[in-house]
Order: sequence, then C-alpha cells, then structure tokens
Amino acid sequence: MKDHETVSDLATVAPASGTRPPVAGMVGAGQLARMTCQAAVSLGIGFRVLAGAPDESAAQVCAGTQLGDYRSLDDLLAFGAGCDVVTFDHEHVPEQHLIALERAGLTVRPGPGALRYAQDKRAMRERVAALGIACPRSATASGLDDVLAFADRSGWPVVLKAVTGGYDGKGVWVCGGPDEAAAVVAHGLDLLAEEHVAFERELAVLVARAPSNQAAVYPVVQTIQRDGICREVLAPAPGLEEETALAAQQLGLAIAAGIGVTGMLAVELFETPDGLLVNELAMRPHNSGHWTIEGARTSQFEQHLRAVLDLPLGAPTATAPHAVMANVLGGDDPDLHGRLVHVMAADPGVKVHLYGKAVRPGRKIGHVTALGDDLEDLRDRARRAASYLRHGTEEEQQEG
Amino acid sequence: MKDHETVSDLATVAPASGTRPPVAGMVGAGQLARMTCQAAVSLGIGFRVLAGAPDESAAQVCAGTQLGDYRSLDDLLAFGAGCDVVTFDHEHVPEQHLIALERAGLTVRPGPGALRYAQDKRAMRERVAALGIACPRSATASGLDDVLAFADRSGWPVVLKAVTGGYDGKGVWVCGGPDEAAAVVAHGLDLLAEEHVAFERELAVLVARAPSNQAAVYPVVQTIQRDGICREVLAPAPGLEEETALAAQQLGLAIAAGIGVTGMLAVELFETPDGLLVNELAMRPHNSGHWTIEGARTSQFEQHLRAVLDLPLGAPTATAPHAVMANVLGGDDPDLHGRLVHVMAADPGVKVHLYGKAVRPGRKIGHVTALGDDLEDLRDRARRAASYLRHGTEEEQQEG
Repeated sequence: MKDHETVSDLATVAPASGTRPPVAGMVGAGQLARMTCQAAVSLGIGFRVLAGAPDESAAQVCAGTQLGDYRSLDDLLAFGAGCDVVTFDHEHVPEQHLIALERAGLTVRPGPGALRYAQDKRAMRERVAALGIACPRSATASGLDDVLAFADRSGWPVVLKAVTGGYDGKGVWVCGGPDEAAAVVAHGLDLLAEEHVAFERELAVLVARAPSNQAAVYPVVQTIQRDGICREVLAPAPGLEEETALAAQQLGLAIAAGIGVTGMLAVELFETPDGLLVNELAMRPHNSGHWTIEGARTSQFEQHLRAVLDLPLGAPTATAPHAVMANVLGGDDPDLHGRLVHVMAADPGVKVHLYGKAVRPGRKIGHVTALGDDLEDLRDRARRAASYLRHGTEEEQQEG
Repeated sequence: MKDHETVSDLATVAPASGTRPPVAGMVGAGQLARMTCQAAVSLGIGFRVLAGAPDESAAQVCAGTQLGDYRSLDDLLAFGAGCDVVTFDHEHVPEQHLIALERAGLTVRPGPGALRYAQDKRAMRERVAALGIACPRSATASGLDDVLAFADRSGWPVVLKAVTGGYDGKGVWVCGGPDEAAAVVAHGLDLLAEEHVAFERELAVLVARAPSNQAAVYPVVQTIQRDGICREVLAPAPGLEEETALAAQQLGLAIAAGIGVTGMLAVELFETPDGLLVNELAMRPHNSGHWTIEGARTSQFEQHLRAVLDLPLGAPTATAPHAVMANVLGGDDPDLHGRLVHVMAADPGVKVHLYGKAVRPGRKIGHVTALGDDLEDLRDRARRAASYLRHGTEEEQQEG
C-alpha cells in the first residue's frame, strides 16, 4: 500500500484522454464551499478550495484542498494559478487583492466591480437606489450628531451598520436610543444609519447570472430570523401575492444585471405595506437557498458553479409544493452524531446536512430540509429535527 | 501558503470538540464510491476509499483516498484499521481476505457470509432456491457433455455463466448451439448452465438492510439492457401490476434477510408470464438505483452508508411520479465536457452525473436522470442527453 500513501491534490489529475474539464477554485472552506464541492463532483469538473486550516468544513471533504490565507495576495495568486475561475464562499477578500488577481490574468467571478457592493454597504445602497429599487432610508453617520439628526427624521430605533467589516463579529446594531447609538459610535467605525423598517416579514430572492448574461431566478422564499440569525426558510414564501413574487424576482434580476454579478446573488428583502425594500446582498450561495439542494431541480451550489464557469444555467424550478429549511445551531453537548441517530430514527424523510464543524453554542453546524405538501407539518418536522440536533430534545428551548 | 501544501488524509481530522463521527471505508474507487462519497459529506461522517490509482473515479474527489490493492490482505488491513466499517463498491475482494479482516476484528459489511452469494453464482442459485424463491433452471456444467445434456432438457440457447470471475471482463455467454458452447467450455472455467428465459422484461428491486434487521425497499424498476449493458432504468416500472410489485419487494426483503446482507442489495429479476425469476444479485449500490439520487427521498448511496453504519434507514419513497435514468457510454470523441455544455443548454432540467473517467468506447462514464410526470417525454429527454454526451448528436447511432 505504499506506506498508506494518501492521494494529494487530485483535482489536478486530468483524465487519461480527453479535453480537461475546467477547474473552479473557491476561496474559503466553510459549509458553502463544502456543499459546492458536492455539486462539482456530479458535473465532473475540477474543484479546489483555499482553506485556512485542514479542519475547516470544506477542507475535510474536498480532495482539492489547498491551505492558505485569503488575506495574502501571494496565497491567492498561487491558488488561482491552478484554476480556470476563482470564486468565493465569503466576501472578505480585500478589494485590492481581487483587482490584483484580475490584473494577473485570472478570471475572478464575481469580479471586484460587483463584489464591492457586497463589501461596502454604502456603495450598495447608492447603487441599488440608482437602479430605481427601494431601500430603507439611510444616511452616512460620521459621528453621533449624524445619528441623532437621522433619528430626528426617521425616529428610533435606528439601525447602525458598519459600512465595511464590524467588530466582535457583528456589523449591525439596532439602537433604541442615543445611549446605545453612542456606544456603537464609540468604536470609531465608518457607519451607515438606517431606518428600522416595520416589515411584515422578510423575503429573499436568489438569482444566478452568467457572464454571457443568462440569468435564472428561484422561487421567492420567506426567511425567519431570531437574534439576527436565520432560523428557518419557507420555499416558496407562503401566501405571497403573485404580483409581489414577480416584483421580487424582477428586482433580483435587475440588481444582478445592474451590478454585473456572476454566480449566485441573494437579495434579502423586507416586505412592507408599501412594497419591497432591499435589505442586504450576498454574492455567493446563501443560507436562504439551502433548500434548493433537494427542493429545486438545480441546487444553488450547482447553479453557482455553472454561472461562474459560464455554463448554461440549470432549471431553478421547485421539486415539491413546499420545502422548509431549518438551521441547526450548536448547543452545549458536542455529541452531534449521537443526536443524528435519534433524528434519523424519528423522521426517516427529513434531509439532514451536517457541516463537520465543531459544536459551539449558537454556531451554524448544519441544516435540515423537509419537503412535501403540508406546510405546517413540514415546519413542525424541520423544527423538531433541528431542535433535537441542537438540544437533544424536540422542544424548542429558551435561547441563551 | 506553506509551499502549496495540500491537505492529505483529512478524513482523520476529528472535530475540535465532540464525539468523533464514524468513518466508513469503501474498498474500490469507481463511480459507486464517488457517489457514496457525496452522500457521506451530507451525513457529516468520515469517508475513505481504497483506490488502485489516483485517477480512479472516486479517488479524484474523495479527501480520504488511500492507495492500495484490494487483492492484498496487508493493504486491506491497513485501510480497515482507520475505519469503523469496511464496505465495498465491487465484489472482487477474495473471500479469504474478507474472513481475515473479520478475524482481525474489523467490521465488514456486507460480511463474507453474504458476499459469497454475490461472488459464487452456484452458491447464490442454491441459496435463493432454498429460500423458496424461483430462479431460472440451472445445472453445473463441468464439461461440454453437461451443457449438451442440459440443452436436451431446456433447449437452446443455453446461458453459460462463470461460477466466479470470467475472462475478457465477461462472465455470461448466450450460446446458440453446441459450437458456441464448446468455445466457452474450452476456457476451462467452472460453469453454470442456465435456461435462456423468454422474459417479458427485466425488473430490479433494491433493498437496504441494517445489522439491526431494519430494512427498506425501493419502488420496483424496469431495466433495459442492450448488448448486456444496462442502458435505461424506468422508476417505477411502468404498468407493473401492484401484486407483482409487492411480490418483487417481498422477494427482495426475503433474500436480504435470508442471506444476511447488510447495506444495499440489488435483485435483478426476469418478469415472465409464469411469474418472477431471480437473475442476479449485487450487494452494493447498483446501476439500477442511480435514479434514487434525485428520484427518492433517500438515495441508495446514503442508504448504503446508513445501513452499513447501522444507522436508522431513510425513506425510500419516490420524489416524482416518474424518474428515467439513462447511462452515458463513452464514444469516440474524448471531449466530454464540450458535449456537456450542449446538453446543459438543450435541457436545463435534466440531471447529469459524470464520473471523471477517461472516455473509452462503450465504457460507463456517467448517467443522466430526468424526473417528472410524462414518462415518454422523460425517456426521450434522458435518451437524447445520454446520446449527445456519447456521440455529439441526439440521434441514437448504430452500436459498435
């Protein structure tokens, strides 16, 4: 057995005969890269991830894993050299590096011109508004005076957002009054003040766009957040007016074309009595699209690969009347596999996806999808399974 | 980037905290192992393959690839040492090695007591008959005289089968008369003579069985062979009498329990005017179950992992009224990816699975699945896509 030789860097192995299939490289090795890796296998294309450490979610399973730092241009250049296209499972690669990769002749999708609008919330607000698409009212907040002036016009609470980055892993703060705003301003971040929208619910629309301009749009979904974390996605959004669904899809397509994104674009929306408002954009596969693995003919992960490789896009049509996705958050007990056995026994029809991540309280470590005809039954099943995987009980517990 | 370090043997990386998930090891690295690898990722379990070469289908994509020879007990023992269960993507591991692995304390599923009936056709015929399940008439053929005596009773053509193995990659010969039979007998193989069944069509039933005795059975499918190669699978078998479908499922369950198989069991059947006859058994995921990736709530690959790890089995229910799977065989032109682009453009709803194998005429290099309501439309779409991937034209050509 050649001393238990392990096979490294197998994504570079071309078939013995035939034109080499393209190689897609994804910077980042979280669960999005892990699920994209699964999709790449079916397409017969090469797939690599740039991981910071060998125990990252995608690095555990991807034969084409390379270790490196996404903040290092040298690492990015070396990684990109073996790839026909470089894409991303997060938005944190510095813009100047993205530009340098393109200057070095690499194909970067989405490119820096589009990714800018996922990295800089002020630029995003301006660009979306310029496309004639409604956003919450917002204003630059250079200091507390600006926040107070904005609150005079829009009322409290005021939502403060870091224009780029954030601190303590957070970039959004809902401030009930001047004291809370002052505490955020004290961190010296470049801030945007936004009105706190009294939305009826949150929606999301996923669009894929290829360099050839082909686009595909998925059914509009409802997302349910708690403590700022997406907990549940209902596909399609129940009871959504057809007119509103169409408006959301058209708005998604318009933004994708307007900012020139390639790959997946997720548009998070507020549904309000006055219409739809754009909340956030993400230019990658997105949590609001995990249901597509089983719930759509083409998953968002396969679609992202098709789009960044400029392959014809797949059908985004639903495979079941309803799909419900519930995120699995980490609980206190690390024995996730033990709880998986219970969930498998309790509900043989629910689809569990685990990300291989260490269990830490509140961390997204997996998701569960239930598909069928009866929405309330599906929500119940997805919630029970996710709750059991977290707490070891099917009852939802008080959040820590 | 640590000199482009690639991450090797990542399946051994346990999460930073928590009970280690189990590790399944599959001997063999063909397309069955490749698709099982995709299923293992979702379950969050460790998965390894024992590959003969780094360019084998599963070795290209599986982070837990180890190189070694399945005919070497040392290689098998070393591979199994890191696995909680050892399973197989083919039946070619010598029986004495399987027994030695168990004696060494490894968990082998299916075990040698069951695998024997996939390796030895005479033992299989005897065991299935002893279970009271009908098979084609057969007799041991030690020489041409035995074949001629069998033909006197059953008529020509006579099917000769190698009891184990075969030659030139073949193990089954349909002999029209004494001369053809003599040519086969001349190879000196241990042979079984079987009646040539005038079947109406071929069916297959897939059963999963766990060590705990839990079993799950899939809808019965029709398989369509040409030149001895499976070309098309229709799930469920169209127009099958409910009574016959139930009989096939019960027969599958009875064989699984009777021979004590763990993991997937595929039973290939002849449907005749007088009832069902068992043709062949396979104890692994099987070509007749590729449709389950999209067409069943639990794919045969996930189900095989659940079964060999003694996890509760998943629902085998269909996700669409009809699924049609067409195998993609290699043609003369190695540029498979170029043809994939056409197929993606021509039919955005068909699911293509490519195995990363070099294109050789007649070799199984992928499959295509179409799912929906209209069986004839689905057959047409699956055939067109498979034909284009083979020949670069949607017209089925004369077979070489």
